[in-house]
Amino acid sequence: MTPALELLETPIQSLPTKALSSIRNGLSPAVGDSLSLDTPEKHGRIMSVFRAMIADICQQYGEGHAGSPMGMAAIGIALYKYVMRYSPKNCDYFNRDRLVLSNGHACLWQYTFMHLVGVKSMTLDQLKSYHSANTDSLCPGHPEIEIDGVEVTTGPLGQGLANAVGLAMASKNLAATYNKPGHVVMDNMTWCLVGDACLQEGVGLEALSLAGHWKLNNICVIFDNNSVTCDGTADVANTEDINMKMRATGFNVVDVYNGDTDVAAVANALLAARSSEKPTFLNIRTVIGYGATKAGTADVHGAALGVEEVANLKRSFGLDPNKHFHIPQDVYDFFDELPGRGEAHEAKWQAAVAKYRLEYPDLAEEFALRVAGKMSTDWTRLIPRKEDNPTASTASRKSAGVLTNALAENINSFMVGTADLTPSCNVAYKNKVDFQSPALRTSCGLDGDYSGRYIHYGIREHAMCAITNGLSAFNKGTFIPMTSTYFVFHLYAAAAIRMAALQGLQQIHIATHDSIGVGENGPTHQPIAVAALWRAMPNLLYIRPCDAEEVAGAYIAAIQATETPTVISLSRQGLTQYPQYSSREGTLKGAYVFVETESDDFDVTLIGVGSEMVYAMQTRDVLRNEYGVHARVVSFPSTRLFEMQSREYKQSVLKPRAGKPAVVIEAYPSNGWERYADASVSMNSFGKSLPSKETYEHFGFEAKSIALKVKGLVEEVRQDGIGILRGDFREFNAGLRIGLEH
Amino acid sequence: MTPALELLETPIQSLPTKALSSIRNGLSPAVGDSLSLDTPEKHGRIMSVFRAMIADICQQYGEGHAGSPMGMAAIGIALYKYVMRYSPKNCDYFNRDRLVLSNGHACLWQYTFMHLVGVKSMTLDQLKSYHSANTDSLCPGHPEIEIDGVEVTTGPLGQGLANAVGLAMASKNLAATYNKPGHVVMDNMTWCLVGDACLQEGVGLEALSLAGHWKLNNICVIFDNNSVTCDGTADVANTEDINMKMRATGFNVVDVYNGDTDVAAVANALLAARSSEKPTFLNIRTVIGYGATKAGTADVHGAALGVEEVANLKRSFGLDPNKHFHIPQDVYDFFDELPGRGEAHEAKWQAAVAKYRLEYPDLAEEFALRVAGKMSTDWTRLIPRKEDNPTASTASRKSAGVLTNALAENINSFMVGTADLTPSCNVAYKNKVDFQSPALRTSCGLDGDYSGRYIHYGIREHAMCAITNGLSAFNKGTFIPMTSTYFVFHLYAAAAIRMAALQGLQQIHIATHDSIGVGENGPTHQPIAVAALWRAMPNLLYIRPCDAEEVAGAYIAAIQATETPTVISLSRQGLTQYPQYSSREGTLKGAYVFVETESDDFDVTLIGVGSEMVYAMQTRDVLRNEYGVHARVVSFPSTRLFEMQSREYKQSVLKPRAGKPAVVIEAYPSNGWERYADASVSMNSFGKSLPSKETYEHFGFEAKSIALKVKGLVEEVRQDGIGILRGDFREFNAGLRIGLEH
Repeated sequence: MTPALELLETPIQSLPTKALSSIRNGLSPAVGDSLSLDTPEKHGRIMSVFRAMIADICQQYGEGHAGSPMGMAAIGIALYKYVMRYSPKNCDYFNRDRLVLSNGHACLWQYTFMHLVGVKSMTLDQLKSYHSANTDSLCPGHPEIEIDGVEVTTGPLGQGLANAVGLAMASKNLAATYNKPGHVVMDNMTWCLVGDACLQEGVGLEALSLAGHWKLNNICVIFDNNSVTCDGTADVANTEDINMKMRATGFNVVDVYNGDTDVAAVANALLAARSSEKPTFLNIRTVIGYGATKAGTADVHGAALGVEEVANLKRSFGLDPNKHFHIPQDVYDFFDELPGRGEAHEAKWQAAVAKYRLEYPDLAEEFALRVAGKMSTDWTRLIPRKEDNPTASTASRKSAGVLTNALAENINSFMVGTADLTPSCNVAYKNKVDFQSPALRTSCGLDGDYSGRYIHYGIREHAMCAITNGLSAFNKGTFIPMTSTYFVFHLYAAAAIRMAALQGLQQIHIATHDSIGVGENGPTHQPIAVAALWRAMPNLLYIRPCDAEEVAGAYIAAIQATETPTVISLSRQGLTQYPQYSSREGTLKGAYVFVETESDDFDVTLIGVGSEMVYAMQTRDVLRNEYGVHARVVSFPSTRLFEMQSREYKQSVLKPRAGKPAVVIEAYPSNGWERYADASVSMNSFGKSLPSKETYEHFGFEAKSIALKVKGLVEEVRQDGIGILRGDFREFNAGLRIGLEH
Repeated sequence: MTPALELLETPIQSLPTKALSSIRNGLSPAVGDSLSLDTPEKHGRIMSVFRAMIADICQQYGEGHAGSPMGMAAIGIALYKYVMRYSPKNCDYFNRDRLVLSNGHACLWQYTFMHLVGVKSMTLDQLKSYHSANTDSLCPGHPEIEIDGVEVTTGPLGQGLANAVGLAMASKNLAATYNKPGHVVMDNMTWCLVGDACLQEGVGLEALSLAGHWKLNNICVIFDNNSVTCDGTADVANTEDINMKMRATGFNVVDVYNGDTDVAAVANALLAARSSEKPTFLNIRTVIGYGATKAGTADVHGAALGVEEVANLKRSFGLDPNKHFHIPQDVYDFFDELPGRGEAHEAKWQAAVAKYRLEYPDLAEEFALRVAGKMSTDWTRLIPRKEDNPTASTASRKSAGVLTNALAENINSFMVGTADLTPSCNVAYKNKVDFQSPALRTSCGLDGDYSGRYIHYGIREHAMCAITNGLSAFNKGTFIPMTSTYFVFHLYAAAAIRMAALQGLQQIHIATHDSIGVGENGPTHQPIAVAALWRAMPNLLYIRPCDAEEVAGAYIAAIQATETPTVISLSRQGLTQYPQYSSREGTLKGAYVFVETESDDFDVTLIGVGSEMVYAMQTRDVLRNEYGVHARVVSFPSTRLFEMQSREYKQSVLKPRAGKPAVVIEAYPSNGWERYADASVSMNSFGKSLPSKETYEHFGFEAKSIALKVKGLVEEVRQDGIGILRGDFREFNAGLRIGLEH
């Protein structure tokens, strides 16, 4: 049968002739010209079985998210059967379309379609493990990247949408870099399903603005517009004109009004997205929990329907209410061509790559390395040698800039972004090309094209990091994205960076202007508590180097951490360099002895961290010269790297001995340092707007004042003859009084 | 002179007659009918002096933000001289218009106008202290709430815009609650200045959606559209149609094309905003660094102009280049009526309140309490008594719901919001009225009006918390806003909650679904590292109660903390109640002895936290029954409250003794617990999607398994005869391996 076209907003003339004729013949050019859409009756049958399946799975444990998956049945058939290019037998096939379920609570939708189309690991038993106590379940409450066929872990709303923008950028960049006339080795689409929430969350809105700006026509945002959220009708908190807003944002907007049943309408709208010149926003009206008595209400959002209701649902669909988890053979048959079709897709791509190799052997070689997740150049030779480090005072953001520059200029795996802080973060590498739509060259006079790897994210830290997750997740190692902003503003993006850590995505966050040394910008810009979050975050590498040599160590650690995001914390102000003491090897161990006392005897261990190392070193001098107190100094750039070392190594660095206290010096709260120190010179209040040095002084970071306190502590401990009691950690702070501060 | 009207988008007919005639006569009804606008020549003169002043101030230290303040000179005159209602002699006058400088880096603009209009504390010397080492400066690098005439601390971009929405909600709510026919005691406007950044940041976009939805016609967003950001032209990352987007979002959009010089045009546009039925978005074209050679470029954004350039600027303005920081008398004269006019405003309001008191004595009494920042009812009687607590297993989110319900139902200082999690967070109080525009009753059938105190924020956690800051900042104590969402999703709002702590704003964040007990929703929803951030954040009260009694303590602490935001961390799952052990008084001390051993002797101290208390208590039993090991148990709901206690109290709770280790049991990373414990049963990885109890078991939270580990530790310490070495903190984790996890 030939379905009616539903391309309400895209004039039919704008489609390429071939696609157009395919649609007119009911064929999908996405899946080959010989395929025609099935009948509405057949689609209805498939959807009924699918919806009953969802209801059954949630009913097992009387919980789960049933409503959205049921509402999205037609969308699923349109995507998985007709439009999406993928290979169920090899979910990781490089040029596959990426599908992101940004409304991750609807995961049963994805799991069930994966089962139907023949993803081997997704068995019927697996589907039934949703919400079970089965620790080997591949059906967690939200989709997880480790599962075959899932592109990114979603759940926290809005993240997936931004990830999808990153995935689309990744293919645009690869296509612009490697495709040649007559040779297409990269041309996949990104399909992103969103609910109301993703379009309300700021991270989603930021990402949409960028997708529109960049004219990423390889992304299609599919809005499951069921108008229901947890609190009831979506109107309760949102009455804007979403279509108008999306048009203003640069999207091609297409409405589909009967998204519950009209698979053909959905499929045609999806198909048109492939040929749009802009990113596409499909506004598809659906009914949450379609088929249930309470369909269209919040009651079916995060709950099972109830035994009786599930039975009624099946009856109303003409299915046997006594059959559970039942997928009749004709339903499997409906999908059974997909594994073969997927293999054909992949074979076609392999052939295209082989042909490409004949004509462009060097590029093909590089492309193969990228596909394998490898860099095209030995990065180790780009790290400055110790002897090339500066000796004069240098801000660590500048030292980091040297590395970013060398790496990004020479290795195109690196994509360097900034949240509008190019001049401050020192990340604009030599000969950089901006990632921009070439169309903006004419309209706005902007330089750059899609092969560019310097990304202006605008003042959108959260989208920057969530998009970065998409770049990282595109294919392991193909990209090593970097972000850059002030240390305190990465907090805007904390939820996205957390998702990177959770998913094991490699990326480097250049976080400049750390500590109170930021100075005049004041307490809003002095990131007192943020480091505590990064230090506690599982699988996140937080490194605070004290000079250029430790910066080199930080970059080495970050590049070696192939399944971990790294935050490198850098100073605005110039830092004293310690060529005779600092060490990249030590940095890689997290902490190391910076200066030992001359004899084995010592009175106190001073732990210097990042830009506060200068106070540790100066305090050591004052202690020795003024008080005859002998201090050893430990540099401690990374607690996580240190915790990976042996007990013996740790003890050799910390030298814990009764009566010989350790004092950490860092302009952050002491939380967590209690593991390594007995006392701290730290911050228990927010900062203050003063010049850098004066800010430090104001809060007691000054060698003479610190030395006096340390001397007092050493004497007290010496007199008592024992260590400092648990719960009696000493904080030397000169905080400002606000509220609870003391 | 009579300026031409510039109301491009608001049809002139829509203005109320009086305002209209005033505008037609060149009068501002906002400041009294007798005032006419001055000449363009005079305005030009004022602006030249103002711009030279900004240039001089930045030139002193060769740094600072000069460009935006210079570009916004005309906007400043229009606001401070003609449109805004305020009292320079009493900046805190209750019914004043609120002005928020969301582009906080432009603070010199505000400081300088405050000086010109006669805010006493803002002397010329103070202006010159910008970027100086003067610790008593009232001119920090970003505006701070402590300064007379500054409504909220801004700097992190987008925050101020959302704050302004909160300030506008606050007045809408007070007006709807207290105004009566013929009696207006609250009718102020909120003016919010934004740059490009605030309109790119997600938090700003979320807040704008809500302002549009709520039809907050008492807010006017003034877009200083200078098209320049740090990275150059704003086009580099943003090419959307902002006017169309703002219209789609529900705003009245007005363009002003010559925002650099045409004070009359700006003033008229501002004036029209007072009579709009929708919130207003003024798109005012300005030139950053107007008058400088490099005007209109990023070079003048965050820098001084240079000595020669400042001189040239003055020359081009017809000013003496050799005079610095010079404000001629005629410029002061231009503004000199403002203190008197402000006093008149305030007197008028006082008179209105006095008249109101005669007719509505009870309401007036309550209003006076609200103005004084006091509650209308004794809140202490609304806290459930200990004997009223449940004894059966109860989720702490439910126990908290009882308190939220009682407080919010009876005391209208409480405004309770949710990010679309009404059913989960148990915050919908009895007889709640939704905060909604009454207009939505007709158009969408929504209940509620502006007197409502239940706020559906939609799925917008960041705006929820940033708007909440505006509610808190409206006037100290007038509102105690509450937010609610899942614990992990407050991380989306971390930057806003940080701003609350920095500003000393009282508010209560109801954070449900804490810990890994969340269960099936999986690792995306299990908030492993978030508590570490709240515990390290200065002036933030983070409380994890273990049962209903401790929940009562948490609420008492939160209400008593009048200059501090509180995050109350609550369980999804049912919790064992400990009526014989738990104590609100103990909770208020942060930690307390839950169960002492029978004799004074003990082997180990177990620290139980929040929903993990049950494992501490069960482990205690297993240790005694199976191994003859005697454990005392400490409950530790709040590290910050505990740190406020005396050393003696702390030692009495922790009882640190050689050979008697302390073990903390919490399903978060151990960071920070090292201060109080020698070992932890904790999490060093993200969580897993399993039912609640099975999630705990999977990660080793199970009494028998914990007891075995604790027994081993006790024996080891007993054998060694000493305490555990520094740097040798013992973590008992059963983490999942991802990336660096070990």
